[in-house]
Amino acid sequence: MTILAIDLGGTRLRAALYTDDFQQIARAETRTHPEEGQDAVLKRLFETARQAIPAGHTPSLIGLSTPGPMDAERGVILHSFALPGWKDVPLAAIVSEAFGNVPAFAQNDGNVGPIAEYRLGAGRGTNPMIYLTVSTWIGGGVVIDGKLFTGWSGHAAEPGHMQLTDDEGNVRRLEELASGTAIGWHAQKRLKTWDKPTLLRESATVDGAAVGAAAVQGDPLALEVVATAGRYLGLGMVNLLHLFSPEAIVIGGSVTKLGDLLFDTVRATIDERVLAPAFLPPNLIRLAACGDDVCLLGAAVNAVDRLGS
Amino acid sequence: MTILAIDLGGTRLRAALYTDDFQQIARAETRTHPEEGQDAVLKRLFETARQAIPAGHTPSLIGLSTPGPMDAERGVILHSFALPGWKDVPLAAIVSEAFGNVPAFAQNDGNVGPIAEYRLGAGRGTNPMIYLTVSTWIGGGVVIDGKLFTGWSGHAAEPGHMQLTDDEGNVRRLEELASGTAIGWHAQKRLKTWDKPTLLRESATVDGAAVGAAAVQGDPLALEVVATAGRYLGLGMVNLLHLFSPEAIVIGGSVTKLGDLLFDTVRATIDERVLAPAFLPPNLIRLAACGDDVCLLGAAVNAVDRLGS
Repeated sequence: MTILAIDLGGTRLRAALYTDDFQQIARAETRTHPEEGQDAVLKRLFETARQAIPAGHTPSLIGLSTPGPMDAERGVILHSFALPGWKDVPLAAIVSEAFGNVPAFAQNDGNVGPIAEYRLGAGRGTNPMIYLTVSTWIGGGVVIDGKLFTGWSGHAAEPGHMQLTDDEGNVRRLEELASGTAIGWHAQKRLKTWDKPTLLRESATVDGAAVGAAAVQGDPLALEVVATAGRYLGLGMVNLLHLFSPEAIVIGGSVTKLGDLLFDTVRATIDERVLAPAFLPPNLIRLAACGDDVCLLGAAVNAVDRLGS
Repeated sequence: MTILAIDLGGTRLRAALYTDDFQQIARAETRTHPEEGQDAVLKRLFETARQAIPAGHTPSLIGLSTPGPMDAERGVILHSFALPGWKDVPLAAIVSEAFGNVPAFAQNDGNVGPIAEYRLGAGRGTNPMIYLTVSTWIGGGVVIDGKLFTGWSGHAAEPGHMQLTDDEGNVRRLEELASGTAIGWHAQKRLKTWDKPTLLRESATVDGAAVGAAAVQGDPLALEVVATAGRYLGLGMVNLLHLFSPEAIVIGGSVTKLGDLLFDTVRATIDERVLAPAFLPPNLIRLAACGDDVCLLGAAVNAVDRLGS
């Protein structure tokens, strides 16, 4: 069996062909350009997918990773912030038909990440496993007893939408306090009252990337801001520990490239606030291992699971 | 089959005999007096349990509800804030031996409540179900696919230990912001700057009970304080919605007797902060239905489940 995986993102469109033990045979990638509309994107999706199928191969199964909200059961994109104008698009059926009516299954891009990291990545064999991606915003998911946990609505878990309050008592989502975007906001605010030298004063754009670059160079304002984000991220993880008691929290996304500049504060906050050491397994926090193709891998694994169920 | 259920609390010691469809045959209750030490409490436990067994009945199974932390697998109380001096007490084995070596299973008192409400109470048939008790502090648990969810450590879920920050940006546990104790604290603090009439100024003790009584009489300070607790409780529930997407949140405990004085703010906070209406099932928030014997019922159900597994 070969599996065609397609990752339809708001920025990038990726496709890859996998063996049934998830070895990549071929891969293709392009820009999505959602502003050109649904028909143009679908045309590009078919082209990219075909580029990922070398001569002599025919996929026997298709897995799709799509922006949400979507109906994973039926493979329908309900609507999408990432794909403006798309409404009730039966993507799994459309792609299945385009590739000789082989079975096709779609899953929310927020859900394929945890599936991939649980089955093939840093969370293998852990229970429960929590997956967090910290980049522009914060996404993630929970795997319990080896299955993606989605709750009554099918939309759990959304760790980025945990409610916390900021230092002034305003209620915020975790992703408004600890994401790359939040790091940029913290820095912009802190810069207003910062009277010491900082690389960020000369920076054309004070965003998460600029703060990260300055932090790596030892800039004191940037380091403080990264530590603040780490503190909020740590509080979010304490909540996850007390509610799910995970065996592993697998964390990916661009912000994790800050390494100990971020994680030192994360760990200190957890140690300070956790209810009891019994909640802390060895090797709790693990860096995601599936890399940039995590959504392709997760889409492939999801399709195999759905086919077999 | 008849089941002897024993609820060993820090204040009260209860016992009841149940039929195998959980109808109560007899019941007994006394004060625990943990300050008299382990031997005295165990003696009183045996006496109370025997009072709950009418002549002609012999229990064929024993279920225990005990303060934590405990090892439910082996039925051992590890140590306990509620029972000072108890350490590694194999209570299930001790009670089993005292009653003719019938099988005995113990479970944390925080976990038997959700079991009872899921199987016999307000959460029947819901998935996932979250149970919250809001009284002196906040406890609770989560039932997923009909099973108590306890995570890797066996100690999940502890909703009262979610981290939030108060209006001044200090990190607090949910139970420090929304429990009966917290209501007393909020009132004591608010009273310092309150320059209008309030019943609480004359009150000998400004605690949760006094605030509740004043709120029911329309006291403006008390109403404001109850609404503040409701706002934090609502934020806690939003977190639970985004993380677990429960079909029902069953809520019990003395604080829920405040009814809409509390729940109006809880509901308003949920409506304001929930990510999408899809997270809100009909009849989400339900009052607990098992009453004061919830721990006895849960201990009995747990014992039957453990015997059958």
